[in-house]
Amino acid sequence: MTTSQTTTSTEGRDLILTRMIDAPPEKVFKAWTDPALLKQWFAPLPWTIATVETDVRPGGSSLIVMRSPEGAEFPNRGVYLEVVKNQRIVFTDAYTAAWEPSEKPFMTAIMTFEEAGGKTKYTARARHWTEADREAHEKMGFHVGWAICAEQLAELVGRI
Amino acid sequence: MTTSQTTTSTEGRDLILTRMIDAPPEKVFKAWTDPALLKQWFAPLPWTIATVETDVRPGGSSLIVMRSPEGAEFPNRGVYLEVVKNQRIVFTDAYTAAWEPSEKPFMTAIMTFEEAGGKTKYTARARHWTEADREAHEKMGFHVGWAICAEQLAELVGRI
Repeated sequence: MTTSQTTTSTEGRDLILTRMIDAPPEKVFKAWTDPALLKQWFAPLPWTIATVETDVRPGGSSLIVMRSPEGAEFPNRGVYLEVVKNQRIVFTDAYTAAWEPSEKPFMTAIMTFEEAGGKTKYTARARHWTEADREAHEKMGFHVGWAICAEQLAELVGRI
Repeated sequence: MTTSQTTTSTEGRDLILTRMIDAPPEKVFKAWTDPALLKQWFAPLPWTIATVETDVRPGGSSLIVMRSPEGAEFPNRGVYLEVVKNQRIVFTDAYTAAWEPSEKPFMTAIMTFEEAGGKTKYTARARHWTEADREAHEKMGFHVGWAICAEQLAELVGRI
């Protein structure tokens, strides 16, 4: 899928989103790690984020509770595997805390923020354990959902 | 299972082995991380280790190829998630490299080496994603196999 600025694609078990963001990597990293900022862009409106907790270090936990327009809440728990400040964040839902296996390892998310003349080349890669899970994620609306979020992220970092 | 010195037990999705080892944690950590040493104790004889590669840091890969008495080779790939020198090593087979999902996330191994008056309280915990996997691991011979390896480890660190 390609909007004017966001491209999503499929590569084996991976779903990939790329976008140039008109702000430096520091701001994009901050929007990914500061709960107050993450809350403002991480759900595709009219979905919202009810709760965010981020302990941004390898082995640290994250909790993001998404809220549907009808008010139903969906908690997402994960663990950070790798954090390179302003450059890269890797986390997975295979653990709910260090090192508590989750009910189902579904994906590992690899976010990279590359500096490009004051802007950021933003790549979000959702890597699944199986192709079936990658397909399920597509059916859940990855391409549209993540693209909306990327637009919301770009809009937010443009004004912080 | 309890031999004179090694105890193994089951706790939900976990299989646990404990043993006092008559050497300081530094030596036990070394036997877990130095390929030349790991090779000497990690397979329950008459099984042996054909190859060992260890990149001991969060996100580093490990490869241990076990060889059956008949000469068949069984490669085990994993990734280190947490390393605290001389104290603690956590690794999983959910990834074959950082961050390549493996075919099947089976377990996370949590090794702790606690100093106890010049000796080491050694705890090896195999934490599985499901109880079915824990049971399968028991049927594969966890209790006897890991106990033999712990004896071999204790014997080795007593003379290095």
